[in-house]
Amino acid sequence: MKWCIVWPDMINIAVIGYGYWGPNIVRNLALLSGVRISWICDMNPKVLADIPRQYPTIKTTKNTDDIFNDKKTDAVIIATPPKTHFSLAKAAFDAGKHVLVEKPMTTTSIEAKTLIKLAHTKKKTLMVDHTFLYTPAVRKLKEIIAHGTLGRVFYVDSVRTNLGLFQKDSNVVEDLAVHDFSIMDYLFSGKPISIAATGMNHQDLKQETVAYITAHYPTDLFLHCHVSWLSPIKIRRMIIVGTKKMVVYDDMEPSEKIRIYDKSVTVTHDLRMGYRSGAVIIPKLGVQEALSGVVSEFVRAIRTNKPPLTGGTQGALVVHCVEAATKSLRSGGKAIKVS
Amino acid sequence: MKWCIVWPDMINIAVIGYGYWGPNIVRNLALLSGVRISWICDMNPKVLADIPRQYPTIKTTKNTDDIFNDKKTDAVIIATPPKTHFSLAKAAFDAGKHVLVEKPMTTTSIEAKTLIKLAHTKKKTLMVDHTFLYTPAVRKLKEIIAHGTLGRVFYVDSVRTNLGLFQKDSNVVEDLAVHDFSIMDYLFSGKPISIAATGMNHQDLKQETVAYITAHYPTDLFLHCHVSWLSPIKIRRMIIVGTKKMVVYDDMEPSEKIRIYDKSVTVTHDLRMGYRSGAVIIPKLGVQEALSGVVSEFVRAIRTNKPPLTGGTQGALVVHCVEAATKSLRSGGKAIKVS
Amino acid sequence: MKWCIVWPDMINIAVIGYGYWGPNIVRNLALLSGVRISWICDMNPKVLADIPRQYPTIKTTKNTDDIFNDKKTDAVIIATPPKTHFSLAKAAFDAGKHVLVEKPMTTTSIEAKTLIKLAHTKKKTLMVDHTFLYTPAVRKLKEIIAHGTLGRVFYVDSVRTNLGLFQKDSNVVEDLAVHDFSIMDYLFSGKPISIAATGMNHQDLKQETVAYITAHYPTDLFLHCHVSWLSPIKIRRMIIVGTKKMVVYDDMEPSEKIRIYDKSVTVTHDLRMGYRSGAVIIPKLGVQEALSGVVSEFVRAIRTNKPPLTGGTQGALVVHCVEAATKSLRSGGKAIKVS
Amino acid sequence: MKWCIVWPDMINIAVIGYGYWGPNIVRNLALLSGVRISWICDMNPKVLADIPRQYPTIKTTKNTDDIFNDKKTDAVIIATPPKTHFSLAKAAFDAGKHVLVEKPMTTTSIEAKTLIKLAHTKKKTLMVDHTFLYTPAVRKLKEIIAHGTLGRVFYVDSVRTNLGLFQKDSNVVEDLAVHDFSIMDYLFSGKPISIAATGMNHQDLKQETVAYITAHYPTDLFLHCHVSWLSPIKIRRMIIVGTKKMVVYDDMEPSEKIRIYDKSVTVTHDLRMGYRSGAVIIPKLGVQEALSGVVSEFVRAIRTNKPPLTGGTQGALVVHCVEAATKSLRSGGKAIKVS
Repeated sequence: MKWCIVWPDMINIAVIGYGYWGPNIVRNLALLSGVRISWICDMNPKVLADIPRQYPTIKTTKNTDDIFNDKKTDAVIIATPPKTHFSLAKAAFDAGKHVLVEKPMTTTSIEAKTLIKLAHTKKKTLMVDHTFLYTPAVRKLKEIIAHGTLGRVFYVDSVRTNLGLFQKDSNVVEDLAVHDFSIMDYLFSGKPISIAATGMNHQDLKQETVAYITAHYPTDLFLHCHVSWLSPIKIRRMIIVGTKKMVVYDDMEPSEKIRIYDKSVTVTHDLRMGYRSGAVIIPKLGVQEALSGVVSEFVRAIRTNKPPLTGGTQGALVVHCVEAATKSLRSGGKAIKVS
Repeated sequence: MKWCIVWPDMINIAVIGYGYWGPNIVRNLALLSGVRISWICDMNPKVLADIPRQYPTIKTTKNTDDIFNDKKTDAVIIATPPKTHFSLAKAAFDAGKHVLVEKPMTTTSIEAKTLIKLAHTKKKTLMVDHTFLYTPAVRKLKEIIAHGTLGRVFYVDSVRTNLGLFQKDSNVVEDLAVHDFSIMDYLFSGKPISIAATGMNHQDLKQETVAYITAHYPTDLFLHCHVSWLSPIKIRRMIIVGTKKMVVYDDMEPSEKIRIYDKSVTVTHDLRMGYRSGAVIIPKLGVQEALSGVVSEFVRAIRTNKPPLTGGTQGALVVHCVEAATKSLRSGGKAIKVS
Repeated sequence: MKWCIVWPDMINIAVIGYGYWGPNIVRNLALLSGVRISWICDMNPKVLADIPRQYPTIKTTKNTDDIFNDKKTDAVIIATPPKTHFSLAKAAFDAGKHVLVEKPMTTTSIEAKTLIKLAHTKKKTLMVDHTFLYTPAVRKLKEIIAHGTLGRVFYVDSVRTNLGLFQKDSNVVEDLAVHDFSIMDYLFSGKPISIAATGMNHQDLKQETVAYITAHYPTDLFLHCHVSWLSPIKIRRMIIVGTKKMVVYDDMEPSEKIRIYDKSVTVTHDLRMGYRSGAVIIPKLGVQEALSGVVSEFVRAIRTNKPPLTGGTQGALVVHCVEAATKSLRSGGKAIKVS
Repeated sequence: MKWCIVWPDMINIAVIGYGYWGPNIVRNLALLSGVRISWICDMNPKVLADIPRQYPTIKTTKNTDDIFNDKKTDAVIIATPPKTHFSLAKAAFDAGKHVLVEKPMTTTSIEAKTLIKLAHTKKKTLMVDHTFLYTPAVRKLKEIIAHGTLGRVFYVDSVRTNLGLFQKDSNVVEDLAVHDFSIMDYLFSGKPISIAATGMNHQDLKQETVAYITAHYPTDLFLHCHVSWLSPIKIRRMIIVGTKKMVVYDDMEPSEKIRIYDKSVTVTHDLRMGYRSGAVIIPKLGVQEALSGVVSEFVRAIRTNKPPLTGGTQGALVVHCVEAATKSLRSGGKAIKVS
């Protein structure tokens, strides 16, 4: 088949897990030049049965060994439930593949460290899909903060709520707070000193469904995030409060995601606090799909052999934060040090 | 002057403090029949100077003794900063007056107890202005919950944020979280077991400006409230999540304040969690001004000698909660028992 | 009574009509220095009975002659139904008073002309309450347009809808479209060439309840306004589309009333139309109450003997437009010339 | 190739035009069982070049004759600019194919009639893609109105505005008002008596970019629609006002598209109009993609040989309305009879 010629430098990528996120990954990969999707693997035969209709040239399998044993496959993308990330990534490195794994990278920080070492030993790329860092909105936030527009940042308040989807082997911190931890790392290049969290388990569910997390960072900065699978309304909103200006990033807005408020607190002569309120600016954002940036970055990292924006180190930090938050939740809100 | 005739059972009320809230109280009092406003007291001479133009029959003074010594004045309404509530209320009781005091009733629970005793000894009404309990929206919430519409309530999430107004002698918990504590008491007739809070002080201000508070109530119910004087957007929103339905109460909405979501979590046969999502209902609410209900209730309590909806007990509970939250804030988030 | 001393240059103003708008006028007048409210006149005895409680120094009457015969009264403000405006204003001029009349100034343009002549002959101020021209939002629109920010303006789209209040002797054009005609006059200093309108009468009501009006102005500018008393949602929104930028003025927004969109249409090389979309800016607006500006302007005009911003000429133009729109409505949408 | 076996009753469909809408049609067709996409035709070679990557089994061509001459192709879907609809549909019928054509079916009603006759003669299905009739929201509107919930409907107010996309050979009426005409036909089974329209042409463009259209239907019902390619904000909203209730259908809302307002006008004893305002209900809607319903309906009509919901008759009516509206626009707003 003419349209199947393998370019000399074509990268062959297999996708493991074809549930909610997998099809989006495949769709974005398919648009990338220099890349060939070699395999899609899923345990659900029904899911596999539908693939040839849409992607007739991609082989399908229920058995990951088909992928790991395929010499022609250079890299794997792992889009399975969190509990399986470590063993699949490990097997992939052992088979000499590059690895892009969904967030959270692993479920424990020991596993995260092991993967980092393994990637280093095998001289392969380890990347984690911290999707939000590839959105035009978060890129704009980074630009605003780096430019000093906000002055010193006091705190970040994040709310991520909706109804469901409950996951059997994962809690709401792993599902939603990971975004906040990775965004904070990206925006402020800092690691939290300590994390405390309160919340609730749903009665019939072993996993946390609602969490309120406070993370303290150096220089008095702190993050509070409210994550919930048990809310009637879907909210995805971060508020960043600085000494000079304040920003609201509402990801539910179709285009006006970022609003910069020319508002701040002032100290008057008699030491009374006042406040200043000026115009609001809503900058124009690009429209790139985040996942397109993710897969491009993965390919770039493989080709250049340089670490990706969201590599093992970034992945491990986020896992560390999730671990601390969950530990605090289960200890009644005790602040947990993030060493 | 004909229009000045004192009815036999006319209640004479003095208002102490004519800053932000005082004028609203006077405006509502003025519309009440059977009531005469005898005095307005404020320390700011400019404020007093403008009153005769609008209310020529009300006497004004900088000296509260003019009120306490006035035999004809039956009751006082105290709308001054929190730190002055106790001493003014005490002096009022000592002078044999009924007392309605702004929220929070006092700044310490010892003061609160003292006022309750004093009111009891003097056989006078002690009432606190927990305004929200007199709004059509909170009345509707009470009705919904009492009717069992929501099933068992898992948790209440409240957000009250805006920019300013910073107050010198008061923190954001006293200013905003009082509403949540009083609403929770009204809706669920319960007292929190423990309260934990994290937050921040503004650098130049001695008082807390942002707080995240978790209060645990009996039967696994909990409240989280986020209160802030340091936010670019004004939010006043409570979410109440039950086993059967969920409610959002958005006080910033001009008329559609309450939304009842026919949403809930379900457990499927294979013990997987699903969720159910039906229609949304926005009930019609009355349009009564809350403060009108507050002053009517005060007059009713005085006339009938029966305790008001928001009397000393309710006021003391809220003070207790504020005290616990502030203590937790200052101890790095430790959970404080509310005995 | 000391506080009743009449200053040498005190202006004595009577208010005729104390229904919906009258109390707002009185409240704003009462805050103005150099002004004394001499009379309030209303035909409803219940309404009059409540006034002394709030304004004990203002005389009340059911008889306008009490006002016209009162030598001390310098000016009258007429806040009665439109049908009565002309005769009351005429009588007031005949009695030598200055006149501020609610919108629309009169119900016919002949009456409007008569009042203008009368004011001129009697050397008295004739002003009409085109309220919106005294709002910070419309002032900002004027500034934006005068500054050339929008480029050439293509068209203005205005929507003013809500449910009720139906008025017996008045239609929705007189009630709502007057605002658009006066704002257009203010912003573009122009008079429409022709007006066409379609709409509906409610079955049991003789007056129009819904109208869609198109007004053509010189230089290809046109206004479309949709006014309705029969809509489930309240909308008050003008969109102004220019060659360079576009503005949305949403009067239902509590503070973010004006949004300036950096959007425009562009012509590409191959004569295809493209469009450009940049940032949105929400300017900070002042918070002055419009009616406060209206009564100040009236007093200023009386004192300086200079025409007010919204004098007889402006009032007559708007009456002319209302007349043309209603005529078109009743002729099935025929375009009516505005001579 | 195994996955290419042609089932006995497989319907082979070709898609002509692969610009904005074509890819969506193909995506939905590809998910339909019993259907094989035989060809995609487009004049742009770049567009065709990318297709094999995603759909390797679909043949591509720049020449529609390849399709018309292909005996195995049973049906064509025409997603090209309006001006080409007639000649392509005619050629397709001449070649013995079933035809689904994008809205508007044709650009003149003579062409529309010709196609209807041709389809009848050739005994082939003629269908037009009036997409909105296949959305859960419009289906719900139909249900509400058919059920009598609204009482008698006074009028429908529709607004469809956004910036661009300007089309060379088409005006805003053909682009946007077609939706209103087809929805009105579906909801009320009626044909307008007359249509009047005002609006504007953009200076450099020969086609209308803004239009305000009034269509009168039997029994005093009327539709007003405001369509614009020259607006800073995207609005897609219909308001339906009945004697008993009112509905707002806001298509920009992600899920709460339909709101039923328990509001109406009442006549009091003294013949004064009042109004009644109760709860708002937001029904739960399904989530089916409209285009999926469109292609299913096309296949159903072909297989059953029964007329589709949106067949030639419906298509011709809408073309007739567009024609009348455009004629009125070009005659300065004269009401045009729809015979």
